[in-house]
Order: sequence, then C-alpha cells, then structure tokens
Amino acid sequence: MLSHLREAVYRANIELNDRGVVLYTWGNVSAIDRERGLVVIKPSGVPYETMTADDMVVVDLENNVVWGDKKPSSDTKTHTVLYKAFSQIGGISHTHSRHAVAWAQARREIPCLGTTQADYCAGVVPCTDPLSIEDVTRDYEGATGEAIIRRFEGLDPVAVPMVLLAGHGPFAWGKDADESVRNAVILEEIAHMATITATVSSPLKPLENYVVDYHYQRKHGKDAWYGQR
Amino acid sequence: MLSHLREAVYRANIELNDRGVVLYTWGNVSAIDRERGLVVIKPSGVPYETMTADDMVVVDLENNVVWGDKKPSSDTKTHTVLYKAFSQIGGISHTHSRHAVAWAQARREIPCLGTTQADYCAGVVPCTDPLSIEDVTRDYEGATGEAIIRRFEGLDPVAVPMVLLAGHGPFAWGKDADESVRNAVILEEIAHMATITATVSSPLKPLENYVVDYHYQRKHGKDAWYGQR
Amino acid sequence: MLSHLREAVYRANIELNDRGVVLYTWGNVSAIDRERGLVVIKPSGVPYETMTADDMVVVDLENNVVWGDKKPSSDTKTHTVLYKAFSQIGGISHTHSRHAVAWAQARREIPCLGTTQADYCAGVVPCTDPLSIEDVTRDYEGATGEAIIRRFEGLDPVAVPMVLLAGHGPFAWGKDADESVRNAVILEEIAHMATITATVSSPLKPLENYVVDYHYQRKHGKDAWYGQR
Amino acid sequence: MLSHLREAVYRANIELNDRGVVLYTWGNVSAIDRERGLVVIKPSGVPYETMTADDMVVVDLENNVVWGDKKPSSDTKTHTVLYKAFSQIGGISHTHSRHAVAWAQARREIPCLGTTQADYCAGVVPCTDPLSIEDVTRDYEGATGEAIIRRFEGLDPVAVPMVLLAGHGPFAWGKDADESVRNAVILEEIAHMATITATVSSPLKPLENYVVDYHYQRKHGKDAWYGQR
Repeated sequence: MLSHLREAVYRANIELNDRGVVLYTWGNVSAIDRERGLVVIKPSGVPYETMTADDMVVVDLENNVVWGDKKPSSDTKTHTVLYKAFSQIGGISHTHSRHAVAWAQARREIPCLGTTQADYCAGVVPCTDPLSIEDVTRDYEGATGEAIIRRFEGLDPVAVPMVLLAGHGPFAWGKDADESVRNAVILEEIAHMATITATVSSPLKPLENYVVDYHYQRKHGKDAWYGQR
Repeated sequence: MLSHLREAVYRANIELNDRGVVLYTWGNVSAIDRERGLVVIKPSGVPYETMTADDMVVVDLENNVVWGDKKPSSDTKTHTVLYKAFSQIGGISHTHSRHAVAWAQARREIPCLGTTQADYCAGVVPCTDPLSIEDVTRDYEGATGEAIIRRFEGLDPVAVPMVLLAGHGPFAWGKDADESVRNAVILEEIAHMATITATVSSPLKPLENYVVDYHYQRKHGKDAWYGQR
Repeated sequence: MLSHLREAVYRANIELNDRGVVLYTWGNVSAIDRERGLVVIKPSGVPYETMTADDMVVVDLENNVVWGDKKPSSDTKTHTVLYKAFSQIGGISHTHSRHAVAWAQARREIPCLGTTQADYCAGVVPCTDPLSIEDVTRDYEGATGEAIIRRFEGLDPVAVPMVLLAGHGPFAWGKDADESVRNAVILEEIAHMATITATVSSPLKPLENYVVDYHYQRKHGKDAWYGQR
Repeated sequence: MLSHLREAVYRANIELNDRGVVLYTWGNVSAIDRERGLVVIKPSGVPYETMTADDMVVVDLENNVVWGDKKPSSDTKTHTVLYKAFSQIGGISHTHSRHAVAWAQARREIPCLGTTQADYCAGVVPCTDPLSIEDVTRDYEGATGEAIIRRFEGLDPVAVPMVLLAGHGPFAWGKDADESVRNAVILEEIAHMATITATVSSPLKPLENYVVDYHYQRKHGKDAWYGQR
C-alpha cells in the first residue's frame, strides 16, 4: 500500500527533524496520492529516533485510516482539509519551529522584507484569524484548516506556500513532501531574519514589489532561470 | 539501595546535559521512591562527563544522606520540600537554562502565548516572590521550596509542572525523573519562544482560555487522544 | 582550464557552507585569474553536498561561459562587475547569512562599534541604496554591482571588504577566495554582535576613530605586527 | 622550560576554542609561574587547529620573549600588566565572545541580575572607561591593562574575576589558566542571559545584595559548601 510514498513521507519527517525545526515529536509531514485520494502521514506522538517507514499511516480524505496499525497525527484533519482545498499541492509540513511560532504567537504576518523571502514566497507570510470558541469545541483540527483557507481567499497557495496559525504555529506545503519540508525550514529562517530586522529597525520597510516579483519569477516563473534546468 | 532508581536518575541527569540546558554543573535531577520515602539526587558539583550511577546520593525527606559517599546537590532541601508538598510528583529537575533564567531574572511570569505551552502547562508559568533577607539567612534552600509552594496556592502542580524562582531560575517536575527533564527542556523552549514573541509584539496577547483548555486536555485529560495510547 | 583555481574556489564554497553562513544553496564564492581575465564561480543551485570541483564554471568578464557544463551562479554578473571596478580584489563571497541579511533588510549600515570590526573593516559596513524599478527590469544583477560601486565612491574596497545590499544581503571580498569567505563569516559575526549591542544600548556609540585606525593598522597596515609575519 | 605550564596553557587555549567562545584566532590564554616571574601565552595569530604546546611562548614580566620561536599574542602586555597588579591571579583569558563583546560595545557594565552571576562574580561585571588618544598612540596594550586596574580600585579581582573593555571585549582570570577559561565562558553565558533579560524587562532589577552574598559565599567563601570538598 503506497510503499514508495510511505518511504518518501518517512524520510521527509526525518529530514524535518534533522534540520533542527522539531523538538521531541512536535512536527509532522504528509503527502497525497492524488489519483487514489489517499494521504500518508506521520503517526501521532511517535519519536523520530525509533520511527520507521512502516509506522506511517495511510488515511483517506475523510480521515479514515485505510492502512497502518498506528493512530495518525492528531493534526491529520488539518492536512486533509488543505489537500481538498488546494488541489495543486502534494505535501504538507507542520512544525513548532521557534521563530515561526513566535510570529504566530504575536499574531503578526511576516512582511516581505527581503529577497530571501521573495525567492520562495511571493509576498507576506499570512497569519490566520484566531479560532472562535465554537470552532474549537465543534471541530478544532478541521476549523484550523478552514481558517487557513479563509485567509487564502485571493491568494495563490503555490506562490505563497506557508502560513502562520494565530496563537499556534506554522504550516508549509509544496509539490511533494520534500518541498513542504524545505518550505517549513525556510519559513523558520525568514521568521528568524525578520525578528532580527525588527530588533534593529522600526518600522519595518517592506521590499519593493518589483523586486519581490523579479526574485519570485527568477526561481518559480515559467521562464525561471535559477538552477540547472 | 534503590539501584534502579539511581540508574534512572543518573540517566536523567545525563539527558538534561545532552539536551543543552546545562552549562558545567549547573543542573540537577532527583526522583523519589514514595513507598520508602527516599530521594535519589545528583551529587553536588560533579561534572556530567565523569559522573556514574554510583555517584548518585540517596537522602531521606529530612535531607539525611542514607546511601552514597558523595555530598548531595546543594539544592537538595528545595527538592525534598517540594516532594513533601506535592504528593503527586515523582521527579524534579533544576537548571540554569538561558531563557528560563532570563525570565526569572526579569521576575516575570511567562504568559501562555500559544499552544506549544498549553500542550504541557495549563496556563502561565508562575514566578515566585523574591526571598526576604530572613529567608536567605535562616534557610535559603528550604525557603526556596516554600516560596514555590506559596506561589502554587490554588494551582495544580500536575497541570502546571514548572516554575520560575525570582532572580534565580527554573524548577520543573513530573511523574518521574524523565518527565521532569522533558518539562525542563520544554520550559526553556517556551521561554525562548516567549522572548522572541516579546521582541516582535507589544503588548503580549495571551492565548484564549478555551484553546489552552483544548490543547491541555488533548495531551493530559482523562480522555487524552494525543499519541498512541 | 584553471584547475588550481577551480579547486580553490570549490574548497572555498565548501568552507562557506561549513562555517554555517549558508542554508541550502544560498551562497556562492568566485575568484579571478587577473592575467587571463577569467573568473571561476559556483554553479547555480547545486547543493554543496554533491558538488565537486568539476562543477565550477569558468566565465570571462563579459559573463560568457568558457569552461564547464553547468550554468554559473545567477549572481555571476554582480561578481564580474565588481572584479572590473575593484582591481585589487581576487575573490568574492555572497551569502544570505542571517544577521547580515537582517541589517540589509533594515537598510542600515553597521556602525563600527568595536575593535572586532575595526580589525577587518576600517569603519562602517556600508549599505547600498535600493534599486529602482528601471534597474531591476533592465539588468538586475549588473545594477546590483553598480549600486555597490556607487556606494564605494570615496571608499577603499581593500580597507572596507564588505557591503550590504539594501533589501537583499551581504557581499564580501578579499585578495583571494579564502579571504572573501573569511570576511563573509566575520561580517555575519559583527552583524550579530551589533544586533546584540543595539538590544542593550540606544543610541549606538561608535568606536573612537583613533582606535579604529590603530586596530586596522595592527592587522593590515604596511608595518602590521599581528600574527607571525 | 616550563613544559608543564606550557602544556596547561596549550590545553586551556584549546578548551577556550572548544567551548565556542572563539572565532578564528580571536582569543588567548596565559598563565604565570609566580616563582620565576615568567608568563606562558598563546602565539599571535596561530590557528587553534594546527597549534601545538611547543608553539606557546614564554615571556618575562617586561614582555621579553625568553623561550619559543613564535611571536607572543599581540595582547601580551595587557596580560603582564594584570599579573603585576593582581598578585593573587594565576591565569588570564581574553576572548571576543559575542555577548560579552556586545555589552563592551554598549559600554555598559552587566548588573548582577541573578544567582547564576552571583555564583562566580560578587556583583556587577565592571566596564572600563574608553582609552584616550594619548593612551592608544603611546602604549595601547599597556594602557588597556591600566584601564582595567583603574576600574578595579576598591574591587577585589578574586571576587570579581572578569571585566569588559569599553568598545573592545572581555578579559577574565582565575587561579590558573583553566579557571580563567571557565570564567570567560561563564561571562559569555551571563552576558547572554542579561541580554535576554533586557529584552523582556525594563528597567533591569538587580538581585538583592543579601542573595548575591549568600551565593558567592556558597561557592567561594572560606566555609564554602558547594561541591565535594
């Protein structure tokens, strides 16, 4: 059952931990097989040190476990809500990385202050609204996904592959599990850079839009010329 | 004499050091055997690099050494005062981890700013009042424990397993030595996140109580559903 | 074709990564053979982990590839513009190191606050003006180099071997690839120190000019007496 | 010639580097043989990676090299001035560690904010006055030592084994080379903690004097009871 995708998701979870954005079990990566409509995700609360590819859990888009003997991540429903809404994405990473969490706790979007951010995110890193008490008591994980979707009205989730959940922390995504991990690591780095910038500059000066556009297109436009393609 | 518990306390002390929250000999872990009323604790001033399980010291709840040829931690009396007052706890860790110390030096409790904290601590991380000159000259280590107990009037030490000592640093506890280490490491992380949040946000916005409750119950309530239980 | 210089540039790129100032592929080092008018530079977007000396690309000063089967760094034109303007330099490093980027994002030059900086940079670390929309659309990488040259009117690029690009990040240079790496690492360190200084001191107090002069001469003057020469 | 002391000073220099308070060659440790009036010190500008015990240099208290084929540290005269003024000390360390440098650049003494500092330094970490232009042009390294001595009028260099040089960085000392390294590492840690404290608290609240006294005596008083003595 999806052994290649399980292996890929397993390795992406290990990479998330190796990159230093995870403490204890505070992170999870998933990926979707769009043809079958199945999602592979990290099991809940299993330490990275002892985890194997066989511990990955396969769920359908209604969050039913269809393979595996572990319970899936407690954040599973947030992942599936995002896969249903954002049809272009193939992998999702959630972490509690330090600086991204801090901006989420500040309930403050990260302005696009420089080309480091523009290379991967075409503008600000958005922040959701807080959840209401009804959201939390009715369906917390589902409502978390819906808060992201509401915030992305008018935004392209391919061009802006990351978000902050107010009072919680970051989600990042990409075309597959590996790219979602890379974007989670980059989000932590740009949140760190933005923190330092805020320490030495007030108010913050956003990057000119024409530079944002240039840098984003250089790496992601249809005629992108960065790298060896 | 309590060889299993001595081994566990030894390994917990090593883990405390490996997790990067200890410089030189600035930390100690203990655990209690509730049936016998005996506490195993790190010896005073012995480097982690050369320490063995046989260096652990066994004391009774009146701080008399009942086993071991080393002097127990100079903080021993604070540990025993806490074990006597908080009957539900089985292990205690004390560190001088950087960010937790800084908030203790600021004499400021850590507000519950996000779900990272709510997952382990049901509300703010409390801070004690400063000790008086009488406290210090009469019985410093005992008075330190009593200051914690006074601050916990009306608080549940199981739901809030950590505290800051004004002008000093953190104590954390748990059901055993390992859990106390984990809580000491998490306290350092949430103090670090709170510091960054304070850098980019003023005033600080506490997490809504209903989200604190939801997250704490998810991991610790009687029907907790996080992890593989 | 320039096999010695390619090996040196390869090792300098690896050193840049090993020194912790690079995330993913966010950095590049080049060096010039002044006699032949040829520049060796890192290929675009190739990970440090799999890169070899044979991946280095040789370009002429008009940015034509004259050796190698990879595309050169997308920043190549900035390098060649600098080599043409600053005839005394032999190597250039570009990074997105965290604190240097943050000051660049703050669009703020780094004052010379202490002898650590004065030992390597005879005064402030300058910051360029932002690029205009015409600069960006016409010739972004060339205009980046020209912005540096404009900022260095009246400055000696040997005595001030580093610069911040507004909204982007740092460039550093030196007599060869290795020295440019060293200066890039030192720029990150002095930007880090300046950030901490700004946290505990406002306004910033620049070092007295006579101390700047003394320290710079001690390491770089014609009768320099630091080290074993 | 002093082979034991050279070996000890060599190892202390390596420890200084291993503890992460040195970048490149930015640190040096010395020790004194009080009977012979000779000082062993690190050579100038030699990298830690290739240094051996035979590279250590022996100088007399007038800064003449009496053994070794390397040039001594360019800071040698500051060391010898301190050895002559502070007869109780046996080792000295100088670093450019990040947070200690930042406070020196802020030209701000570090208040005693908590017991971590009080355990090793009986009060504030003092900061010297800036040097005058006459000081710098006449005898920079000697004047640096004299500025420290002036600042220590009325202070006990055994109880306060560390200082900040305005616009430069820290010196620390102790009964031997190893203790001076330990105090240099601790100074960096308490400077780091003080920086974080300043981020979350304004104004800073110094620790009560009676707690400073208690903690300092616990580790250093004539009836000290910390550790295994």
